[in-house]
Amino acid sequence: MNYKKMDSQDISYIKSVISPERVLTGEGISEDYGHDELGGVFSMPEVLVKIMNTEEAAGIMSYASEKKIPVVVRGAGTGLVGGAVAVHGGIMLDTTAMNRILELDRENLTVTVEPGVLLMDLAAYVEENNLFYPPDPGEKSATIGGNISTNAGGMRAVKYGVTRDYVRGLTVVVPSGDVVKLGGKVVKNSSGYSLLNLMIGSEGTLGIITEAVLKLLPLPSRTLSLLVPFETMEAAIESVPRIIEAQVQATAIEFMERNTIMFAEDYLGKRFPDTGSNAYILMTFDGNSREEVDRNYGRAADLCLELGAKDVFLVDTEERRQSVWNARGAFLEAIKASTTEMDECDVVVPRSHVAEFIKYTHELAEASGMRIPSFGHAGDGNLHIYLCRDDMDQGTWEYKKQDVFEKMYEKARDFGGLVSGEHGIGYAKRMYLDEQCGPCQMRLMEGIKKAFDPHCILNPGKVVALYGR
Amino acid sequence: MNYKKMDSQDISYIKSVISPERVLTGEGISEDYGHDELGGVFSMPEVLVKIMNTEEAAGIMSYASEKKIPVVVRGAGTGLVGGAVAVHGGIMLDTTAMNRILELDRENLTVTVEPGVLLMDLAAYVEENNLFYPPDPGEKSATIGGNISTNAGGMRAVKYGVTRDYVRGLTVVVPSGDVVKLGGKVVKNSSGYSLLNLMIGSEGTLGIITEAVLKLLPLPSRTLSLLVPFETMEAAIESVPRIIEAQVQATAIEFMERNTIMFAEDYLGKRFPDTGSNAYILMTFDGNSREEVDRNYGRAADLCLELGAKDVFLVDTEERRQSVWNARGAFLEAIKASTTEMDECDVVVPRSHVAEFIKYTHELAEASGMRIPSFGHAGDGNLHIYLCRDDMDQGTWEYKKQDVFEKMYEKARDFGGLVSGEHGIGYAKRMYLDEQCGPCQMRLMEGIKKAFDPHCILNPGKVVALYGR
Repeated sequence: MNYKKMDSQDISYIKSVISPERVLTGEGISEDYGHDELGGVFSMPEVLVKIMNTEEAAGIMSYASEKKIPVVVRGAGTGLVGGAVAVHGGIMLDTTAMNRILELDRENLTVTVEPGVLLMDLAAYVEENNLFYPPDPGEKSATIGGNISTNAGGMRAVKYGVTRDYVRGLTVVVPSGDVVKLGGKVVKNSSGYSLLNLMIGSEGTLGIITEAVLKLLPLPSRTLSLLVPFETMEAAIESVPRIIEAQVQATAIEFMERNTIMFAEDYLGKRFPDTGSNAYILMTFDGNSREEVDRNYGRAADLCLELGAKDVFLVDTEERRQSVWNARGAFLEAIKASTTEMDECDVVVPRSHVAEFIKYTHELAEASGMRIPSFGHAGDGNLHIYLCRDDMDQGTWEYKKQDVFEKMYEKARDFGGLVSGEHGIGYAKRMYLDEQCGPCQMRLMEGIKKAFDPHCILNPGKVVALYGR
Repeated sequence: MNYKKMDSQDISYIKSVISPERVLTGEGISEDYGHDELGGVFSMPEVLVKIMNTEEAAGIMSYASEKKIPVVVRGAGTGLVGGAVAVHGGIMLDTTAMNRILELDRENLTVTVEPGVLLMDLAAYVEENNLFYPPDPGEKSATIGGNISTNAGGMRAVKYGVTRDYVRGLTVVVPSGDVVKLGGKVVKNSSGYSLLNLMIGSEGTLGIITEAVLKLLPLPSRTLSLLVPFETMEAAIESVPRIIEAQVQATAIEFMERNTIMFAEDYLGKRFPDTGSNAYILMTFDGNSREEVDRNYGRAADLCLELGAKDVFLVDTEERRQSVWNARGAFLEAIKASTTEMDECDVVVPRSHVAEFIKYTHELAEASGMRIPSFGHAGDGNLHIYLCRDDMDQGTWEYKKQDVFEKMYEKARDFGGLVSGEHGIGYAKRMYLDEQCGPCQMRLMEGIKKAFDPHCILNPGKVVALYGR
């Protein structure tokens, strides 16, 4: 596919429909817009437009469609797979100024938001109103539009599910420039193919999300965490399926290694409650009945001790809560700060296979001589595994990285796992998606892409490549 | 599209790959296979095959694809929109013999089933194992394959969501005859377009579901219902958004009119606990903490009395539970038995608009002189509204039915509602889906259908019509 190189006429046109101070070009565009959080993919857009509403998005999409100019949508740029990088140049639409919370509907328990609202702002807003938006990805400064585009998961998926489970309706600009409304405030929907669910997790390749109706729950009145140290990572993680089986209804079950905790202590300059053990499980319980929450965490604590835990720390003071969860929130940044360059594997496996999988990453680290720290969501099987370059030369790094990735994704497949649990495919993980899905599923995905975007102008080169391989 | 008329060679081929006693033709096929529960659409398949496994489905699909023979999959035939009727003839695949529960995985809290397992058998099986499959459609003798194909909802959607929320993985034969595995036992998934979620609710038009991995929850230890009589239907339904707002976490909130209850009494030959009021709300509460369940239903009961309820009956004995829920389960059959012919409207509206919508159906009944009883899921906005022919002549019935449907769907759209909450589009509701979605969304759905089924041989003429209009 040959895309149109943008010229002064294109830019004049855009400035005629969008206030010129929101249209940036060339040197005027910060280099930050050329990469995402991980930074492994770099490419600058030709024009950056800070859009304010659906009509602006539709107008630009329509023009771009006519002229065959690529369009990439970007929220807060917290992605890790190059999903929001303009790999073919063209127009980047920055949604961060579309950050209004439009309506809280208490009768339908929904909140309607623009895509640029940050997860942390949404959480604070609904909690002030005694309501609860359960999805809880680690990166709180991501936009809700980005969360929907990757079907972000987060810590509380064990009990509450993922972003998909909380999206009731979307307003979307499709590549033709048409605006469609999918779903709504309704609870049930069996009205044709679920374009709503297809849009969720499609990483900005099928449409531009300009408004979202999200489902809320009552805010649980009691929340409390347990930090449980184990002698070994295997012992820690092997306890997780037992905890699930015991039906104690944990909200979140995270695992963490001592090394990762110590990086976070260094990074934050703050102490973690305990670093005397090799491995930790961090569990959260919530609910509206003190009796039930306490019974559940009590049973989980007893079970962990039976399974060899060295102790159980109750995380119930504000100070301890901050110390533990701030550390958990800083793991990605802390590992990044500990090395020269890194890449990430976001596999998801059935939770009964997490212990074996982590053990396998330790074997790979040993065999490859590469440092491979990890942390993640033991309770839902979604692991975040980091390949650290440290002092390797470029060639060795590229070669070993590819080799280790191949082996990890192959092992995940053996366990009935998938390439990505919550970070998406973007640009960086396409070959692994191909390998997981095989030609038939990829052909179906390509067919869907063509149905939405016949000229492949919306976020080209991502998820399914079509002409952009 | 011209489909191939089946000949003796086709039948010989099928009998060479499937045991001949499971291949029926002509007079050998019961007339039951020509229609579904509602019976408004009638057409016989040319061949009926009782399939036993994925390989058989794939073999037949592959042959049909090559020969351009239509294929329709049918479970228990409990649909209401002609979705499982072979409107273009061809091969019907009956999945009811694929009724094995294959695996209960306690570590991952999943159950793996064949598509022909009946909802009531699945529920009984998991409950014996102290686990819980929350979706609870009224028709317990539907197959789970059918439930997935329509994204069935049911009573407990208020608290637990719909079938979609409990489908983790599917094995699917696509129209080319290829077998794909979508999702798995994993909790999170951000690995390309969600073909899994596209398949759910696609009414057998994109693939043949041959295996499903379903998510389970711990079985709540306490469940109890309240039956609340009101003087008028408006008062009853207007209480529902107040109940939702009060955050009492009801599992189900159903509404029912006296007339409907009395039809059910006649139909079942059993008494309902109370028929002295015009309208009733039936609420269920469940949980693992007696304290919490009791607090919630207590608050709901007090609120209903404040809002004008005439009384509150606790449904906590086995006898009363059976009397109430058996009646609720018989409403559809009872209304059907009360008239000569009927058709159904399954709209879903935001729950804050249910009262207005029901009031509108009463106005339509008045204006049209047609009897229009209704019942349904007040708590999730999904209404089941029945147009009764009674003693109208054919012409009047057809004319009035069309007119009333048009008005109801238009009103639903005005309220931000959708054509179908849980019964699907099938054959009978296509024109209303067209009107709801508009040309852009319909074009996208048609594009998806073409990507999966370029020759439109799988359940042709349903949901999106392509060549079959």
